[in-house]
Amino acid sequence: MSESFFHSLMNPKSIAIVGASNNPMKMGTMHALSILKDGFKGTFYPVHPTEKIVLGHPAVKSPLDLPEVPDLAMFVLPSQYLLPVFEAFGKLGTKYAIVITAGFNEAGEEGADLEEQLKALAKKYNIRFVGPNCMGIVNREISLNTSVSPIVGKPGKLGLISQSGTYVAQTIDYLKKRGIRLSKAVSVGNEADINIIDVLEYLGEDDQTTAISMYIESIRDAKRFLQVARKITPHKPVVAQYIGGSEAGGRAGLSHTGAMAGKDYLYDGLFKQAGIIRVYSVEDLYGIGWAFATQPKIKGNRIGIITNSGGPGSAIADTCDGNGCTMPSFSKELQAKIKPLIPAHAPCGNPVDLTFALDMKVMTHTIPDLVMKSGEVDGIVLHGAMSTGFLSAVFPHLSELMPGVTIEDMIKGATKDLTDSVRVPFKNNIPMTVSSFFDRSDQYTKEYEDNDIPVFDSPEKAAHAISALVEYKGIQDRKSYQPPLELTPNDTALQILKQATKNNQNNLDEYDAKRLLASYGIPVPNEVLCHNKKDAFEAAQKIGFPVVVKACDSSILHKTDLGLVHLHISDQQSLLSAYQEIQKFAGKPVAVLVGEMIRGQREFLSGIMLDEQFGHCVAFGVGGIFTEAINDVTYRIAPMSDAESEEMVNDIKSEKLLSLYRGMPAVNIKSLATILSTLSKLPFIHDEIKEVDINPIMICGAEPVAVDALIVLK
Amino acid sequence: MSESFFHSLMNPKSIAIVGASNNPMKMGTMHALSILKDGFKGTFYPVHPTEKIVLGHPAVKSPLDLPEVPDLAMFVLPSQYLLPVFEAFGKLGTKYAIVITAGFNEAGEEGADLEEQLKALAKKYNIRFVGPNCMGIVNREISLNTSVSPIVGKPGKLGLISQSGTYVAQTIDYLKKRGIRLSKAVSVGNEADINIIDVLEYLGEDDQTTAISMYIESIRDAKRFLQVARKITPHKPVVAQYIGGSEAGGRAGLSHTGAMAGKDYLYDGLFKQAGIIRVYSVEDLYGIGWAFATQPKIKGNRIGIITNSGGPGSAIADTCDGNGCTMPSFSKELQAKIKPLIPAHAPCGNPVDLTFALDMKVMTHTIPDLVMKSGEVDGIVLHGAMSTGFLSAVFPHLSELMPGVTIEDMIKGATKDLTDSVRVPFKNNIPMTVSSFFDRSDQYTKEYEDNDIPVFDSPEKAAHAISALVEYKGIQDRKSYQPPLELTPNDTALQILKQATKNNQNNLDEYDAKRLLASYGIPVPNEVLCHNKKDAFEAAQKIGFPVVVKACDSSILHKTDLGLVHLHISDQQSLLSAYQEIQKFAGKPVAVLVGEMIRGQREFLSGIMLDEQFGHCVAFGVGGIFTEAINDVTYRIAPMSDAESEEMVNDIKSEKLLSLYRGMPAVNIKSLATILSTLSKLPFIHDEIKEVDINPIMICGAEPVAVDALIVLK
Repeated sequence: MSESFFHSLMNPKSIAIVGASNNPMKMGTMHALSILKDGFKGTFYPVHPTEKIVLGHPAVKSPLDLPEVPDLAMFVLPSQYLLPVFEAFGKLGTKYAIVITAGFNEAGEEGADLEEQLKALAKKYNIRFVGPNCMGIVNREISLNTSVSPIVGKPGKLGLISQSGTYVAQTIDYLKKRGIRLSKAVSVGNEADINIIDVLEYLGEDDQTTAISMYIESIRDAKRFLQVARKITPHKPVVAQYIGGSEAGGRAGLSHTGAMAGKDYLYDGLFKQAGIIRVYSVEDLYGIGWAFATQPKIKGNRIGIITNSGGPGSAIADTCDGNGCTMPSFSKELQAKIKPLIPAHAPCGNPVDLTFALDMKVMTHTIPDLVMKSGEVDGIVLHGAMSTGFLSAVFPHLSELMPGVTIEDMIKGATKDLTDSVRVPFKNNIPMTVSSFFDRSDQYTKEYEDNDIPVFDSPEKAAHAISALVEYKGIQDRKSYQPPLELTPNDTALQILKQATKNNQNNLDEYDAKRLLASYGIPVPNEVLCHNKKDAFEAAQKIGFPVVVKACDSSILHKTDLGLVHLHISDQQSLLSAYQEIQKFAGKPVAVLVGEMIRGQREFLSGIMLDEQFGHCVAFGVGGIFTEAINDVTYRIAPMSDAESEEMVNDIKSEKLLSLYRGMPAVNIKSLATILSTLSKLPFIHDEIKEVDINPIMICGAEPVAVDALIVLK
Repeated sequence: MSESFFHSLMNPKSIAIVGASNNPMKMGTMHALSILKDGFKGTFYPVHPTEKIVLGHPAVKSPLDLPEVPDLAMFVLPSQYLLPVFEAFGKLGTKYAIVITAGFNEAGEEGADLEEQLKALAKKYNIRFVGPNCMGIVNREISLNTSVSPIVGKPGKLGLISQSGTYVAQTIDYLKKRGIRLSKAVSVGNEADINIIDVLEYLGEDDQTTAISMYIESIRDAKRFLQVARKITPHKPVVAQYIGGSEAGGRAGLSHTGAMAGKDYLYDGLFKQAGIIRVYSVEDLYGIGWAFATQPKIKGNRIGIITNSGGPGSAIADTCDGNGCTMPSFSKELQAKIKPLIPAHAPCGNPVDLTFALDMKVMTHTIPDLVMKSGEVDGIVLHGAMSTGFLSAVFPHLSELMPGVTIEDMIKGATKDLTDSVRVPFKNNIPMTVSSFFDRSDQYTKEYEDNDIPVFDSPEKAAHAISALVEYKGIQDRKSYQPPLELTPNDTALQILKQATKNNQNNLDEYDAKRLLASYGIPVPNEVLCHNKKDAFEAAQKIGFPVVVKACDSSILHKTDLGLVHLHISDQQSLLSAYQEIQKFAGKPVAVLVGEMIRGQREFLSGIMLDEQFGHCVAFGVGGIFTEAINDVTYRIAPMSDAESEEMVNDIKSEKLLSLYRGMPAVNIKSLATILSTLSKLPFIHDEIKEVDINPIMICGAEPVAVDALIVLK
């Protein structure tokens, strides 16, 4: 799998289409018209059973009649007719295809069969294809548009990958009206062959694409996704929306592209691990993506706010504040420079509020330039740049007072050269986002957008966008990815697992589980497995009171609930009672574990789970008895490097627990991270291990200790 | 303060304006033009020092030259000229005014002086006024618009109150393009006289207004706000955005309207208590408000989704799912009715996905009507209704194939009678929100909006809006508000406070604090204050080991950190050591508190704090040592009724802790709520009490016990 094959698919010199006719209301025709009319310079070959001329081009009945082997074949005919003509292209030697046609995996069993046949044919003839059930591709670099909606004008820098065709078709007009321009777009449909990861890899290497937005309903190969994304995200921002985590959302998705939705929290962890910025709406997918695609990379989190009104200024400040930015008060020097430019009493300490200023040049050029040059901010949010939009809005009232002046005259009169304003961020190499209540009918909005400065229709959105740039800085600042250090299976572990397998155990008993963990360096309490009272006495004396006494039997889970765990045992008498009670409640003679009493108030949990979609995943969070109530757990895909594990530890919401807290020392995060990275490798070196659950990991002083552990076998 | 005065201000028969001229670029002129041109039927009097005719109306030099006493005077002249002419209107007998003029409280000391003088004049002449530093009022009922932007067309049902003029001025065009129509709007500016609460009260009673949106930077009188809002929110939805909680946001706000921003979490509590739906962007302020204003009230949380594409359908499902809605699978009967209407294999189980359906009547009328009539949903979200917008977008491609057909012909041909579609929700009395990527250039979007069905430009927003309706149902379902039961000061408490005041104490010692709480029925541990070892022994024996021993002295705070608290004291020997250690670490002879050892794993906190803006507020949340790390605390304004307290208890994020949890019984929420409501009344019956802090409230079995308490005196 390399970049080159998909590059070839995106850059055909000739395209044949099956399913286009001269009927403008047919989908095939609409797709063909986009190829023909949006500037594609290559050759266009319609294939049609009856028409001689399609859209002004001579049509052939069969692909085999074509004068050359087309680079790309596109199919928009009903699914029942697809296979033979697809095969004909295969015979002809066409190597790339787009299957727009629906009615495959997403349409029940019959469709799934058809999809299998399609895949088999593609394999037979070495055809790589996008779809089926997709909306096609867009490559603005060669003015190629195979979607149903016209895309013209200057290319943009945002690459789009979508598992929903709608987001490459229904939204073209939406994007146009918001000034958002794409570099490349691919609607992947059912991903019978080419999937979003292939496209991601390609866009990651594409020079025309400076940021990537992905609409995701399912990732079929999380490991490869991670591998590919990790290479891209340190230098090119990737934004993703994942949809389908809810039951009804999953239900919708399954019938949509035949893809199975996964657990939202695993996607969340995957995105974090991959360095992907997650968004929660298609608006942000486009808008935040566009901000990334156009703006210089931000160097810090200090934001300057320039506004013509207090309300939006405060809204920007509040939103930035809640999203990891700071709004430093400007220095006296800077304020002294700004003050003469704005009305008396107008605030200039950040936000700079020009109140209802009509000198737009000062607002959009002089002040932003001053602020950027001051070195006191890393990014700017600007609200209130407006001219012709506002004038058009108020023109109905003013016209009578200006006899003979038409709205066109007025707009013309108000239209200015905005070159200086639209260059400010790029000249200073400092990002800027703009908020305006006026759309592209306003010259400012239009020219900002046309010159790669994102304009949002409310202050909060412009603030969110600049905050996303700051979030990405965190991703860029991460240590460069190093694969996890190798972990070698050791004899103790091999022996324990061999014995358990021999015994047909579903899981290891606690003693063995901890011995196995300890054999890989995970700290566990000092413990002795005892088969009678005498052993237990001796063990307790050796360990020193107080001790913990628990039943230890691989067939007994949920020991606490069954009264099989006794804490704080401080003398022989109590030990005896505990031992007897355990035997009684266990309902059969069981071994007991006598162990040192670990004390600590901070409890975490960690585990390995096996997800049917993502394989082995790691969990880490607040543990102990409050786990479910507090629900502060984060996830990653296994295996993990130490650096990833450390990031994971710091990802919990209650991260204050990790530092010096109420007189307790800061947690040794490196030790905690090592536990996670070690755990994350275990299922890969021991096939027998299905799941691991350590809860609690108690913090004793600064050090984590695995106080209880369960290892579930396959 | 009654409804009638503000009703009069909003319904003048005559308006005089000072500051309008014939120069179209002056603000005063723009305000005047809105009055003159947007349909106001009353009389208009310009006052101007030099012009004889202003905007076609005879002008007078002084108000005293007016032919009648105008109902309303409006001022748009520079602040230094305001007072004399304002006074002239006072002398004339005008009772209502709007002061647009800025340069008052928001502009430093001089401005603040001026505002005081303005208030004094208003008081002297009994003038009630809006402003200064505002954008005026809008009353669509009488076609009165005093803002700077034209507002025409059909009135809407959304009432708007704003502490930022921008949101009544700069956004007029924004609202128009989104089909959002207002009933009334008031920009309150600095609120020197009339404030947002006055306007809220008025809109609450206004028949033309079915929902209210408030943009808030500061509430000056939280108690009255609460009182007024409580009356409105059970029958009329109120949506609010609060801005200013961040440091920079507050900085911006202070210079904006001179208002002090408050703590975000207190506003959050205030809104919850008041039954107000909080939003976090101006887009939601308008959009969610508009959904409330137009849609029937929702009767449950079951949402049906109808879409023409899987992506948006899943996005709606996920968003609804995350916001308190359910998406029930449709019954077999209902599915059987839908199935024949949509393509084979298209899902109809909810979401109903018509795939790329072009039969819009089925999508927008037949299916929604079927689903609503089924009784299986309480609300509907619809995505994908489109016709002329899509056709316009693709017309550039199609035109060549349709010689002689202009875009106008095509739009005309595609324009349908949508009466049936736009009536569906109202006929069925079931709310619906719509998502479309096409704006008002599409007939569906336009007609939906013009017929009071809100259209959002992305699926997530339409889903958020329907979720907000569900949230409001929760508010409507609350018990009707009953004022808190009276609490009578008792002798014990009076005596304790009297003594402490006499002793010049800053706070009560723990013993007294708990005695005071206990005197009002708040459960505390069994405790004895001891002044020597002998007393301590006797107390411990009486209470029964194990006991707790703590220093008890009103001058010693943070006892735990100082080693002055000893838990789990299980025998006389340990008691003796504890006693001696306390004496040693206290650094002086101190009394000790010997108390029963309360056991419980769930710990909460509760407190009363004195906020400089809101007065006494109540806090409740997860307590114990993890308070800061977990940060799960909610706030309310004191005093509270038992019902409010119960709601407050259930408002914590870790609400699972309250129910049956890991073998622990469900918490007695009534007891916990009674603690809160009792606490909330204490500062009102005991003037000496400034703050109260109970942490932890331990749950012993099911019952809360105040294990440690501090009462701070004024």
